[in-house]
Formats: sequence, C-alpha cells, structure tokens
Amino acid sequence: MPAERYEESYLYRLRHSAAHLMAQAVQELFPKVQLSIGPPVENGFYYDIDFPQPLREEDLARIEKRMKELSKLDQRIVRTEVSREEAKAMILDPAIPGNGPDVAEFKLQLLDAIPEGEAISFYDQQRTDREGTLHRFVDLCRGPHVESTKEIKHFKLMSIAGAYWRGDVRNKQLTRIYGTAFETADELENYLHMLEEAKKRDHRLLGRELGLFMFSPRVGTGLPLWLPKGAMLRHVMTDFLQQEQLKRGYLPVVTPAIANIKLYEKSGHIINYRDKMFPFMEDEERETYILKPMNCPFHIEIYASHMRSYRDLPIRYAEFGTVHRYEQSGEVTGILRARGFTQDDAHLFVTPDQLIEEFVGVVDLMQAVLKKLGLTQYRVRVGVKDPHSDKYVGDDENWEAATAAIKNACDKLGLEYELSEGDAAFYGPKLDLIIKDALGREWQMGTVQVDYNLPERFDLEYIGEDSKPHRPIMIHRAPFGSLERMIGLLTEQYAGAFPFWLSPNQIAILPIADRHIEKAQEVAECLRGTIYDTRPLRVSVDERRETLGKKIREAQLQKTPFMLIIGDKDLEDGTLGVRSREEGDLGAMTLSDFLGKLPHPSAS
Amino acid sequence: MPAERYEESYLYRLRHSAAHLMAQAVQELFPKVQLSIGPPVENGFYYDIDFPQPLREEDLARIEKRMKELSKLDQRIVRTEVSREEAKAMILDPAIPGNGPDVAEFKLQLLDAIPEGEAISFYDQQRTDREGTLHRFVDLCRGPHVESTKEIKHFKLMSIAGAYWRGDVRNKQLTRIYGTAFETADELENYLHMLEEAKKRDHRLLGRELGLFMFSPRVGTGLPLWLPKGAMLRHVMTDFLQQEQLKRGYLPVVTPAIANIKLYEKSGHIINYRDKMFPFMEDEERETYILKPMNCPFHIEIYASHMRSYRDLPIRYAEFGTVHRYEQSGEVTGILRARGFTQDDAHLFVTPDQLIEEFVGVVDLMQAVLKKLGLTQYRVRVGVKDPHSDKYVGDDENWEAATAAIKNACDKLGLEYELSEGDAAFYGPKLDLIIKDALGREWQMGTVQVDYNLPERFDLEYIGEDSKPHRPIMIHRAPFGSLERMIGLLTEQYAGAFPFWLSPNQIAILPIADRHIEKAQEVAECLRGTIYDTRPLRVSVDERRETLGKKIREAQLQKTPFMLIIGDKDLEDGTLGVRSREEGDLGAMTLSDFLGKLPHPSAS
Repeated sequence: MPAERYEESYLYRLRHSAAHLMAQAVQELFPKVQLSIGPPVENGFYYDIDFPQPLREEDLARIEKRMKELSKLDQRIVRTEVSREEAKAMILDPAIPGNGPDVAEFKLQLLDAIPEGEAISFYDQQRTDREGTLHRFVDLCRGPHVESTKEIKHFKLMSIAGAYWRGDVRNKQLTRIYGTAFETADELENYLHMLEEAKKRDHRLLGRELGLFMFSPRVGTGLPLWLPKGAMLRHVMTDFLQQEQLKRGYLPVVTPAIANIKLYEKSGHIINYRDKMFPFMEDEERETYILKPMNCPFHIEIYASHMRSYRDLPIRYAEFGTVHRYEQSGEVTGILRARGFTQDDAHLFVTPDQLIEEFVGVVDLMQAVLKKLGLTQYRVRVGVKDPHSDKYVGDDENWEAATAAIKNACDKLGLEYELSEGDAAFYGPKLDLIIKDALGREWQMGTVQVDYNLPERFDLEYIGEDSKPHRPIMIHRAPFGSLERMIGLLTEQYAGAFPFWLSPNQIAILPIADRHIEKAQEVAECLRGTIYDTRPLRVSVDERRETLGKKIREAQLQKTPFMLIIGDKDLEDGTLGVRSREEGDLGAMTLSDFLGKLPHPSAS
Repeated sequence: MPAERYEESYLYRLRHSAAHLMAQAVQELFPKVQLSIGPPVENGFYYDIDFPQPLREEDLARIEKRMKELSKLDQRIVRTEVSREEAKAMILDPAIPGNGPDVAEFKLQLLDAIPEGEAISFYDQQRTDREGTLHRFVDLCRGPHVESTKEIKHFKLMSIAGAYWRGDVRNKQLTRIYGTAFETADELENYLHMLEEAKKRDHRLLGRELGLFMFSPRVGTGLPLWLPKGAMLRHVMTDFLQQEQLKRGYLPVVTPAIANIKLYEKSGHIINYRDKMFPFMEDEERETYILKPMNCPFHIEIYASHMRSYRDLPIRYAEFGTVHRYEQSGEVTGILRARGFTQDDAHLFVTPDQLIEEFVGVVDLMQAVLKKLGLTQYRVRVGVKDPHSDKYVGDDENWEAATAAIKNACDKLGLEYELSEGDAAFYGPKLDLIIKDALGREWQMGTVQVDYNLPERFDLEYIGEDSKPHRPIMIHRAPFGSLERMIGLLTEQYAGAFPFWLSPNQIAILPIADRHIEKAQEVAECLRGTIYDTRPLRVSVDERRETLGKKIREAQLQKTPFMLIIGDKDLEDGTLGVRSREEGDLGAMTLSDFLGKLPHPSAS
C-alpha cells in the first residue's frame, strides 16, 4: 500500500518551515543576503540565497546554532493573504525584516510569476519579546507551514552547493544550502546514520577498494573497465542467470554490438531514441553503422529469419547484450548509470493465449533471481496508460488485454502491486520491481514490458492453428535491469561483503611461512576442483612474505568470506585454521569439516 | 619439416604445361581468341583468355576432351630462346600457330614488360603427323615446362571466372579458366573428392542447416547473429577456455567495446591501423569515440592503473573481447573473416627473466586447447625479423632476446618449428600455429607475439628488486585466434558433427507418442542435472506429433551425438532405446548404463 503522499504530509510542511527558519537565521547573520526560493525536497529542504561574499562550510554551524535559538523562541507562523499591490509594497518595505528594495530582486520576479487570480501570501514568523516589541521575519510564500517554529526541533544543515537562479546557466549563481528535518530525534539520527553508511557503501569507493572496476579518462566517461574480481562477479551472475534461464526454456543468442542504420530506421529508434545514441559511424564511401542502444531489433531479425508456426511459440531469446547510450556526462554515476552496459535482456514472442502464462513465468523468474541475490524487500509497480493522454500506440482492445494480463499475472502470483497511471511505455503497459535496499533506499531495477508495437513495425507473423498468419506479442524483460546497475546495488546492499556464492574470491588461503606454501597450494587445488553451486570454488593463496596479521587484515578488507590459515601445527595434525568473515575464528578443523561449514547454496 | 618448395617442384611444371595444353586446345576450338597469361597456382593452374564471344560452362567439357587428345599425341615441349626482335616477329607471325597480328595484343605487352637483359623464350608444343607435317603451338613463356604433353594425363578443368587484364579494373575483362592437374589419377581423385567434401562442409551452409548463425542485410555484412545452438557452442568454448585459463593463473577482465580516440592516438592505432577501423563516432559537440579494433590498449590501461612491483609479475589479463575491423566486403567470408568478432585474447606482462617460462606456458596452453578441440595436425611457424629490412622497432638486443626466447620455448616443449624470415610483427617476433584440417587444408589460427613496443609507447613500468623502475615485456596471445574463425574451422573439420563435449545439443530425447512425453521430460530433467565435463548436459525433447522416423532423421541431420527413444516397452522395463551418431542403434539400456556410454571427457 502506498503511504500518504509526501507533499500532503506534516513532514513536508515541517521541512518547508525549517527552510524559512534557516532563511531567517541567515538573514540575521548576513543582513545583505537576497533570498529566492526555499522548498522542501525529497530528504529535507534547501534555500537558494545570494550572498554578498562566499559562504564557507564552517558558517553552517553558526547558522544552525541561530536556528536552534530562533526555534525555541516559539515564533508563531502566520499566513497573510494580500493583493498584488500590497505584496509588492511589502517586498520593497525595508521596515519588514527580510524585505526592502536592496533584497527584492528575486522576490519581485517570483511575485510576477504568480498567475493572475491565484492567492498571494506571506508567511510571518513573529514573536513579542519581554519588552513587548514585535519581531518578525516575513517571506513571500505559498505555504503551507507548521504553526510555530518550536515544532522545528530535529534538523541539520547538510551542505552547500551552487545553483543558478531558476536553473538557467545564463542567470546569476546563488548559494544553495541543503538541510534536513524530521519529526523525532530518532528519525533524524537514523537518517544521518544511513547517510554515513551510504557513504561507506558507495559502490564507486568500494569498486576501487575491492578491485571490481575502474575508469580511465583515455577510455572515456561512463565506460567501466572490469578488473579481475569484477569480471568474476559478472561471470558468476551471468552464469547463474543463464542456467536459470536454460531451465526455463530460454534460448541463448548473441548479436552484434553494431548494426547498419537500416535496422534502426525500421525499428523507429532513429526517430524516437536518437538523443540517447552515440554519434553514427559514417563516411562517404561506406554504409552507416550505429552502436546498438537496444537488443530488441536483433532478436526480431532472428525471429523473422524464417516462418514460425503457433507450435513454435513461445520463443524466448535471451542475451547478455552490450548496449551503449549517450547519457549526459552529469547523469553518469559510476556503474549505476554508465554509457556502456550489459542488459540481461530477453524477448519472448508469444500468442495472445500465452501472454498471461508467459508473463507469470517472467515474474516468477524475476522473483527467483531477487531471492537468490538476497534482495527480498521490493514493491511492484504496474505502469498503465494515462487515460487522458494520446501518446500511446496500438488499439484499445490490445491495451486492455495487455493490462488485464499483467494484473492477472500478479493475482496468480499473489503479488500486491500499485497501479501507476501514465507509467506505461508508449507501446504497452509494464511492470517494474522497485527494490528497497539495506539502508531503506529504493532502486528501480527489473522490468517486464508488453509490446504490440515492434511486431507491427517489423510485420512479424506466425501461422496459427487456422493456417492463417497472426501477429505475435512481444514481452521485453530484464530481471537485473542491467548487470552493471545490479552489481552497483549489490555492492551497496552488502557493503562489498557479497554472499558466499557470489563472492569473486570465496576463500583466501594464508600460509604462515614459506614452508606452508606447498600445503596451501595442495588445499587450493583440491578446493578449486570442488563444484559449489554449479561452479568451481574460487580460491586465492597469499604466498607473500608478510606477517599473518597483515595477510588476515587484507583478506578482511577484501571482505573474503573465509580464510584458511596453515601453520606448523596444521601440517602435523592435517587441519586448517578457519576464520569466517561474519563469525571470526572458528578454530582448527579438517578440510572436509570446513567444506561442511560452507553455506548451503540456496535452492534456485 | 617443410616440403620441397612448390615453385621448384615437378608438379608446378606439370601444371604450367597443362595451362599451355589448355591454351592450345582453346586456340584450336576458338581460333579468334587472344591469349594472355597462364600460370600454375596453389591448387592447379589458370589461363586468362580474351574470347570473341562469351564462354559457357558447357564448353569446358569440349576443351577438356581436346586436351586429352592433344596430350596423347606426345607433343614435344621445346624451349627456344630468341632476341627481342625475333620474339616480336614471332608473335606477329600468323604462320606460327597461336600467334599473328590479330591475337598479339597481350603478348606484345608481355614482351615489353620483360626487363632488358633477361632471357626471352617461347615454348613450342610440336608433333609430326604420319604425313610428316609439323604441327606446333608456340607461346611466349618463361617456363619451365615438362618435356612432353603425354606427361599431362590427370587433369580437370574446374571453373570459369572473369579477370581484368593485369588485375586492373580499367583494363579489358578476360575469361579465366581454372583447371587442376596431378601426377597420378589417385591424387586427382583425392583432390576432387576433397573439394566435394569441402563443399558439403562449408561452414556457411552448415551454419544455416545446423542453426548456428545467420546474417541479415539490415544488420550488415560480416556481422553474424548467433542462433541458439551457435550461442551455446560459443558458450561451451569460452567456458572451457576460461576454466583452463583460471587454472593457469590468468585473470579475467572485461573492457568496453569502444573508447575515446585519445586511447588509440596513444597506442598508435590511429596511424597504423586506421584502414581497418570503422568510421569514427564524431560530432561537433561531443568527444570522438572509436569501435575497438584490438583489446591491448585496454589491458594496458588496467596494468598502468597503479604501480606494479616485480613481485606482482607475471600478470596475465584474459578477455573474450569483441573487436571490429572494417574488412573489405570482398574479403568477408562467413564467420571465418567477419567485421565483428570475439578474440580469445590475453596479454601477459612479464619481466625479461620470465619471458621464456611464460612463453612456454602459453604454447603449452595452446597445445592443450588444440588437443581438446581434436585438432592434432599442425605445424609451428616462428616469424622472425627480415635481416634486410628496417621496418622493425626496438633495439637488436631485445629482438635477439625475444627470438631466442621463442626458440628456447619451442626446444623446451620439443616442438619442431619452421623459421620464417620477415614474418615477425613490426614490434617483435611471433609464433603461429598452422592447423591441417581433416581435408588436409591449412588454417592459420592461434598466435603468440612478443612485444617491446606498446610497453614503451605507454611508458609501462614495474619496480624491480633493485627498487628501480623497469620496463615489462608484453606477450599477446590467442589460442583460438578468434572464436568465430575457430568455430568456422571446427564446423568444417567435423562436418558439423562436433565432438560430444562441444555439441550444442548433446542428447535428443524422442518420445514415440504423447504418452511417453512425461517419462521423456523426467529423463531430460535428470540428464540436465548431470554435470559432464564441468557443465550440465544439454538435452532436447522432441514433443512434436511426428513419426519416430521423422524425429530420428531430423536429429541425425542436426548431428546430435545421442538419441534416446522412449516407447511402451521402455516405460515397462525402465529402459531407453539408445542411438549413437557414430555407431547407430545401441539397443535398450537403463539411464545409468547410458551415462556409462558417454565418451570420457578428455583430460585437460
């Protein structure tokens, strides 16, 4: 069940008032500032302010201190509605704190932007001191707000950033101060703790520390180079999904990373997707080629390569397809949003009769995948047509059938879902999985889409039981979403301590001295010959002449699930000193006892 | 040991004389033809002739018949050396058969092209008939030839093609007649049989029939789309090699398919390799990107991403890297030479001390790979510097060390090799494996190269035991060469009947009727859960309502190694009817007995 809309919540008003309280404090401490706008945002609030001299991070503590004092003064927050003329007069009145001709530049523009006929309001933070003097801070604002500043108790100023007035680079750059506020001290503390945790779990940081991937300016923005451990992680993930898919009747295919422009003219990408595409490969004497942004047209070419019968369907083509999209450099974020990435893509070609069952099958696979990855908290969003928009293709009957199929599939699976009008693709409704990670953050990952459009564009057919040609329906789906994004999420979810089956290096063998290396290699060979969860165990041997302490420390930093320490006593007794990442020292045991300690590979 | 040079062999002279014999026959049958050149070539000979009217394939039989008659006449083949003036006079003399002003156009040009001081000779096929009349066919030619036309017994005309005079499209197009000749009837027959076989084994044909790969004009020339069985074959091959490499201490990496142009400026590819590259991705507002033609610069970026110590070396980065090269469309041949392909690439960064041992390791791996693939006939060619050329980079000392290392490695492995001067890469010597396939054809496949140049260009370093920076040496290697080319070779080698471990579908289960499907699925599930040669068995179930005969025929056409037939008797007795691709019907047996019949996965 979706919660109350944030925009209508008390928390939203509280944060809005916190922004005003901050503006009041800033205005007292830096009297010449000009205020602009100060809205609540997803995790707090901000205010964009024009400072006569640069603000330093250290100033935030002073502002925060003054906010605390002002909060305790129990200022009433009073709304006043005025006419446009009165509003202008107030903004220009130097006698009203926070206003006056010198600081009116942005407020006058905001006033101008309020449409005719809409209410114009000020919010006035007022208190009367012991001498009976009235103190005020008056800000042009639509509101709403809380009733008194004393409600704003649990807040923190977070950071400073630059922001152009009205988001336009041709305008003046203002100083944006970010803050957050919560209703209780616990909530604030949890949030700040979560931020600390998130910083430690940042996949870009961990990616470097754990040797998963790197970037190079000579290679380019958003184009990760996967280091040995990251490449192994990719391999384990794709191998797992491939096996899972083979069991479920998917057929692997491999298609080129580029194609002639003709393919994308046919698919419509040239018109609908050009912004996201890399520049074309063209010269006068050759045909024009394009880096593929999506795999669908290739799978369609394979489907269309010979005549299909209803008896051949469903056909499920799966590919770990490398696609390229020219994301704006500001939007590129580590491997979460890269310019080159690998989709765990598949396209199912089905008859109308098969649509529900195949959709159920896809969602079931996605659930099995998430379970194996340990991502158990997620919600389901069904994106349907906005009934008031005409941007969609295909006839109503198909849309209704497709939407019903998705709902029906969810019901069959006993899956609760949230309907989201307008969240459909232009060619059909879709289902998205939105995962909640260990820190409570949400990530949109896997998706399933029902498509009547591309089969139409490519004139796809199958011969039905009636010996006549029919149009198949396509299902597009990606349980991971993208391999890169899923690895980014898993890295943050587990703070780099991947589950045993997924760890790039599962077992580090640490010989204490050179004379223990031979035994270490023997144990390594035996383990590497052991199949665990369908793959050989991944084992390293640390042969360096370093102290055991250093070797253990490094294996811990690398978040290796198990260490096997080999010393003189172990050679004598035929044992190994076992340390687990989670439980620490498990004592000496035989190799076969150790193998018994490995977590059972979860059923999949 | 290399054989006698073909150019100096009797067979070469024999084929040359066969070309003349053909010219004589043609000249008799089509008196107005103009002859140009008629050399021996790799598998036979040809003659380029200007026909007044188009020659038809059917004419070849007539020409061949006349050649047989002329051959039996035991014409002496006599060489005459003449002066340039005499030669010109002879060419223009209509009294000399094969000559005269009307048919002198090309011969006069050929005469002009003979350098001053070089011998000018004619070869004269002469016989005296019963009436004592002398018959001749006289052709300007350097020779040498055999002594009598009666030696030319075992020949066959093969095909007709167009060929421009002197290979220049601006010149007249002549008719090229291809033929072949051998010393014995057996050799000719074997060769013709081999050609028949090769036609049947053509990987393009089999690729389609077996559902391995396809091409699509909308995707583009030389860009294969891998169908389910081909994708599985790729997977098995890469999985096998990856496991083999992991055992040998290789580290997997995955790098982008594109990079900023800066990377290739640094590597020198922009200068040295531009012809083979796809057009660049450039527009005014963005940086320029390039489709990667080679993986080396990426692996170098990873090596260079932090400081290395001699203790870290050797480092062996392996990648199944997708590269693109803009081959001329005339050179593209199925998957043997494609524009997009996957190299089983690796780069080893080694100290000078490690060079020999690492080279030995690479060759050992390549031999293990070929053994597993069943390619046991191959020769080794060591390409070294041409001492008379200055096209090489790097100092002599390094070249000597590298060449010595390669020879040394071959000696250690007891490997016979052929030295080939001038066959080195410009940056260092290399070793190529030249495989002889089941039809005796040679394929240049895997390669190992020693490189001092790229480490220099990228200023690569490691800190030596002396705490000073040193330059590593790179080894480039690819045991398959490319995945596509190797699959093309294997397809032809095995005529599509891949060894059991490699077969995309290993076992076809054929239920006789619907009531046997349940059992078939049960057996399939059990087999799919069985690990064979480190991978789950690949099994299909043919559930169609077709006759058993049809099902068997199709599984045979698909070259499936085993069929398991399930009927009523099998349900009763708990058996399966087993058919092997090679041995036919093996009778009824239990599933576990069948598993015992599977070929033992060869040690690897």
